[in-house]
Amino acid sequence: MAGSTFGKVFAVTTWGESHGPAVGCVIDGCPAGLPLCEDDVQTFLDLRRPGGGGLATARKEADRVRILSGVFEGKTTGTPISMMVENTSHRSKDYSELAEIYRPGHADFTFDAKYGFRDHNGGGRASARETIGRVAAGAVALKLLAELGIDVESRVVRLAGCDVTRQAELTPETIPGFDPADSYGGVVECIAKGLPAGLGEPVFDKLDAEIAKAVMSIGAVKGVEIGEGFRAADVRGSENNDAFLPGLPVTKASNHAGGTLGGISDGADLIVRAAFKPTPSIGLPQQTVTRAGEPAEITVGGRHDTAVVKRAPVIVSSMVALVLADMLLRNMPAKLENLKKVYGE
Amino acid sequence: MAGSTFGKVFAVTTWGESHGPAVGCVIDGCPAGLPLCEDDVQTFLDLRRPGGGGLATARKEADRVRILSGVFEGKTTGTPISMMVENTSHRSKDYSELAEIYRPGHADFTFDAKYGFRDHNGGGRASARETIGRVAAGAVALKLLAELGIDVESRVVRLAGCDVTRQAELTPETIPGFDPADSYGGVVECIAKGLPAGLGEPVFDKLDAEIAKAVMSIGAVKGVEIGEGFRAADVRGSENNDAFLPGLPVTKASNHAGGTLGGISDGADLIVRAAFKPTPSIGLPQQTVTRAGEPAEITVGGRHDTAVVKRAPVIVSSMVALVLADMLLRNMPAKLENLKKVYGE
Amino acid sequence: MAGSTFGKVFAVTTWGESHGPAVGCVIDGCPAGLPLCEDDVQTFLDLRRPGGGGLATARKEADRVRILSGVFEGKTTGTPISMMVENTSHRSKDYSELAEIYRPGHADFTFDAKYGFRDHNGGGRASARETIGRVAAGAVALKLLAELGIDVESRVVRLAGCDVTRQAELTPETIPGFDPADSYGGVVECIAKGLPAGLGEPVFDKLDAEIAKAVMSIGAVKGVEIGEGFRAADVRGSENNDAFLPGLPVTKASNHAGGTLGGISDGADLIVRAAFKPTPSIGLPQQTVTRAGEPAEITVGGRHDTAVVKRAPVIVSSMVALVLADMLLRNMPAKLENLKKVYGE
Amino acid sequence: MAGSTFGKVFAVTTWGESHGPAVGCVIDGCPAGLPLCEDDVQTFLDLRRPGGGGLATARKEADRVRILSGVFEGKTTGTPISMMVENTSHRSKDYSELAEIYRPGHADFTFDAKYGFRDHNGGGRASARETIGRVAAGAVALKLLAELGIDVESRVVRLAGCDVTRQAELTPETIPGFDPADSYGGVVECIAKGLPAGLGEPVFDKLDAEIAKAVMSIGAVKGVEIGEGFRAADVRGSENNDAFLPGLPVTKASNHAGGTLGGISDGADLIVRAAFKPTPSIGLPQQTVTRAGEPAEITVGGRHDTAVVKRAPVIVSSMVALVLADMLLRNMPAKLENLKKVYGE
Repeated sequence: MAGSTFGKVFAVTTWGESHGPAVGCVIDGCPAGLPLCEDDVQTFLDLRRPGGGGLATARKEADRVRILSGVFEGKTTGTPISMMVENTSHRSKDYSELAEIYRPGHADFTFDAKYGFRDHNGGGRASARETIGRVAAGAVALKLLAELGIDVESRVVRLAGCDVTRQAELTPETIPGFDPADSYGGVVECIAKGLPAGLGEPVFDKLDAEIAKAVMSIGAVKGVEIGEGFRAADVRGSENNDAFLPGLPVTKASNHAGGTLGGISDGADLIVRAAFKPTPSIGLPQQTVTRAGEPAEITVGGRHDTAVVKRAPVIVSSMVALVLADMLLRNMPAKLENLKKVYGE
Repeated sequence: MAGSTFGKVFAVTTWGESHGPAVGCVIDGCPAGLPLCEDDVQTFLDLRRPGGGGLATARKEADRVRILSGVFEGKTTGTPISMMVENTSHRSKDYSELAEIYRPGHADFTFDAKYGFRDHNGGGRASARETIGRVAAGAVALKLLAELGIDVESRVVRLAGCDVTRQAELTPETIPGFDPADSYGGVVECIAKGLPAGLGEPVFDKLDAEIAKAVMSIGAVKGVEIGEGFRAADVRGSENNDAFLPGLPVTKASNHAGGTLGGISDGADLIVRAAFKPTPSIGLPQQTVTRAGEPAEITVGGRHDTAVVKRAPVIVSSMVALVLADMLLRNMPAKLENLKKVYGE
Repeated sequence: MAGSTFGKVFAVTTWGESHGPAVGCVIDGCPAGLPLCEDDVQTFLDLRRPGGGGLATARKEADRVRILSGVFEGKTTGTPISMMVENTSHRSKDYSELAEIYRPGHADFTFDAKYGFRDHNGGGRASARETIGRVAAGAVALKLLAELGIDVESRVVRLAGCDVTRQAELTPETIPGFDPADSYGGVVECIAKGLPAGLGEPVFDKLDAEIAKAVMSIGAVKGVEIGEGFRAADVRGSENNDAFLPGLPVTKASNHAGGTLGGISDGADLIVRAAFKPTPSIGLPQQTVTRAGEPAEITVGGRHDTAVVKRAPVIVSSMVALVLADMLLRNMPAKLENLKKVYGE
Repeated sequence: MAGSTFGKVFAVTTWGESHGPAVGCVIDGCPAGLPLCEDDVQTFLDLRRPGGGGLATARKEADRVRILSGVFEGKTTGTPISMMVENTSHRSKDYSELAEIYRPGHADFTFDAKYGFRDHNGGGRASARETIGRVAAGAVALKLLAELGIDVESRVVRLAGCDVTRQAELTPETIPGFDPADSYGGVVECIAKGLPAGLGEPVFDKLDAEIAKAVMSIGAVKGVEIGEGFRAADVRGSENNDAFLPGLPVTKASNHAGGTLGGISDGADLIVRAAFKPTPSIGLPQQTVTRAGEPAEITVGGRHDTAVVKRAPVIVSSMVALVLADMLLRNMPAKLENLKKVYGE
């Protein structure tokens, strides 16, 4: 209920606060027999790590993952996969001021409202370090998808109000009037190729609905689109419908739908876009209040991302991969024929 | 797993095909003691009914709801509330052609891909009549929310590429170059007022993530935004952050966030927007294929919505209400203090 | 949360009160392509119907089931199967006395304690009619199991303190000192044959743990055993262990374990026993209290079962079948090899 | 689905193999504000540790627990509580023989049947060390229950076929014809005092049904009883019914029911009994087979429990506490009145 588990069959539970001893996750429901080692996971964790370069923070944490269970002689065993990353810099700063003040745009106030108090160090549970568990689990999901020929890739397509075509453009220079004390939003696009038709459940657990939840659950995301998304609202049915092409397997002449029909994958590329707001941590003075309701001014200094979207693609890919892995497993009992394939006749 | 249940505590299961004997839903987890009668539900069902008027179909179904369980002497008992609406016109048309042909933009092909065959009459489970269960359950959720002073309202804010300010504008005349044989998309905005701060779970089950899933699970929805949504991606943090105002309870000077911070409600209005694609059923000829992959042309005639968005607000409100009711109940055990309030000390 | 849904993949939600308009269930997650008609279900409902004969009540309800969704041209479609039985005798008796008095051994008091009030007519939700939903859903599960060569059978093995070897002995004559105004308990044994090895999940969702929950959830059950059950506590490991026999597939020389090892089916018969208490409704005067705590005497007259265990085998079989169907579907993604069988390589 | 999570609101996920780096658990859904430190948990872990004394193994692991998240300044924060115990002796023995041979009564064969292979070191996931996660989580649940005045205690009431009245009798001397190379079963009784009336959900998630699952999920358990259990099957209703006593709150003259009526707690003591089979690891030669089906003889040497039941009470208490904590939280939204207590009116 408390919502730290994602997925119903391929189920991931994440845990950990920014400045506690460690962060991590447990995957329950990964099929047995998948080749897996720590390097498979580390590769993706390295992609999410703050890298500096003018738009992302330079926090230099090693973020070495350890696999504590569920893997034996290089293959998953079918039992829970527990992974952990120690927080090496967890005593490096004094956050005591934040115990009594609410940063605008952050979850400080809402955590207090919900729980009565909060771990205020570095954002506690509402820290970007929370995404480590997502990415570690996503790496396992991506490995599973690859076994079935499915590939998931994400990239930044918009930054600070400008379209981005090459990821090399993700520099301060491409932002008009760039202010290093402010922050900038952007849009990430994720494309999954090689999906079989048939994934997704009718009605509530549509593939696109699960994707929407997964992506919107990422910290700074404020909007999610599938295929044409909001543009579909402005066109006619005769323009938006994708014609089917002759021949088997069934294919389409276009992909305005973004790979789902009636919430079920149609075999075309799954296309997802996520809008990231600018990170609320900025180096400019802001008006706010204390817990007691007294007026206050705050300037959030220290290491922060100027454009968090730069580090976001691996997180979006991870969340999309978690959905796809789960929906692949959930779809297995969809027809009696599949049971007979698994159990023999 | 098959995804016909929505919600974890206030849990709704819907069932039914367009041309079967009936459609309906079961709510498990509605608190005992809520005043409820069939008229409470009927009011909302009447809002979703096709109404004609040039943009919506004129299918004249009575859609009378019956409450079959869970209510005793005018109040909910805490046990499952089963509601049913009979399909009165379920033998009115010959759909046999659709057994062998795939309508573009519809779920005909993907249901076949998933299940091996499908009920092709009137869309089967993937029919707009599936929303009856959502609206019936949503009516109960809205009643529960009203008991706590929470109000949910939706309206069309964009139609066929034009902004809409008054719902009276939802006519063919406001669509430039209107073609009754084609179809048009639009955007619905939903605002919930009176929410307590603290709803929503950190990490995966954020309030906005659950909203995104709920709204994206509605048939024609292709995009979801919270607050500024995609516009937030284009602005700076200094513009997008909402300053907190002095005084208690805590309030904000603006509401770009749309009522959530860190995925938890902040007490401001919850603002949600959903993009509806134009309905894929159009009266123009389209290229498609048969189940065997043979080329075919189809013209989907008969009663259909030219602008399905006109009937959508009650459905969006229902889905948002289902999320809010569920999150209100899920939040109850968030702190030990709440347990002591319920169980005494 | 409110617990009216059983199963995670083959998921059954039941609803309905004894004296409301109807009772029923919705199955979500039944694989598509299973042949199913109303007669398949009716056969099992007829077995649970009160039959008289000196030990069971003579309530003569037709209990005709209607399938309202999820079946098309004689086969399941993969979408929710809604089934309903109308309560034909639901206005036949005056239960107003029970609104203010608590029957010993019944749930009258505990429903009031939980919900603040209750539907007191004929037990409301805590009526034996609640088992109609279980048996209707169980009939579908049994049909699914039969497709895979699995058979589930139950019978009474103990009645009123005496062992029972033939079901024909279930008469008042075999109960020493039989008093028609009193009631008698018994034990039902259920055996499932033909299970593949490998069903059940390690740790919490062991096959025997799910069976224990399923069976203990039946109204009057107070004890559950697997294999030797409580007798296993009294013997030595050298007596209780089942030796494996040479040859493949692996078999055992004995079956003290009752078909599970480590909570996972071992391919031997699954053996379950359930202890049913005597029904609390008896025709003798009993001491009790009113809602206000005032002393009262009650004699529960009318139609009641002298030995409810006589009607219990079909209910036990239904619950065991629901578990087995669910565990079969849940086990499908256990290994990568199974995914490749379903999705091709 | 893979079943490593227990509980719906107070939800515990356990992970870890006997001879991997560590074992542990994550609790999601523990209310914020509960005082908690590592010593609270360590106290219970020490009770489950092998203690020698002639009936339990002398494996001397330190089993020091670390709390990695979810606690801040001595109180739970409402976010996931991750706990871990390192496996200090995890390279101490050569288990390679067990890779190819199936121990009778163990899960070796069934894990292979389910997953295609297994971690054979020390039982892998099907080891008694798996209970560390249960006990660590149970310690937190017990702490939560204590805040509401609820106490849970367990003891051995039967050993090797003899009743046990004092725990000091749990020695080899009290077992007639004791053979240190064999193993012995027993029965544990658990009593929970101070429960409010109203816990448990009607129909499937009855309090006793959830207890049955929880207790049957413990490794060696083969039977579960509530109250009179199997004895209730042998008596008359007039003997088994518990009369209500005058006065408020409502109490009963006896407690044959064991604290539940209709699956909902009635305020009397909750009484649960669990039958433990003798551990299958014995020092006597046994007939078995290899993975290839070849006949083999095995003598399981090394450290093992002669009477595993001696260490079982803390595990039974833990599982009962997990159920009670979960049912307490699940019951909070049962009536509208409770919502108004939590959210104000």
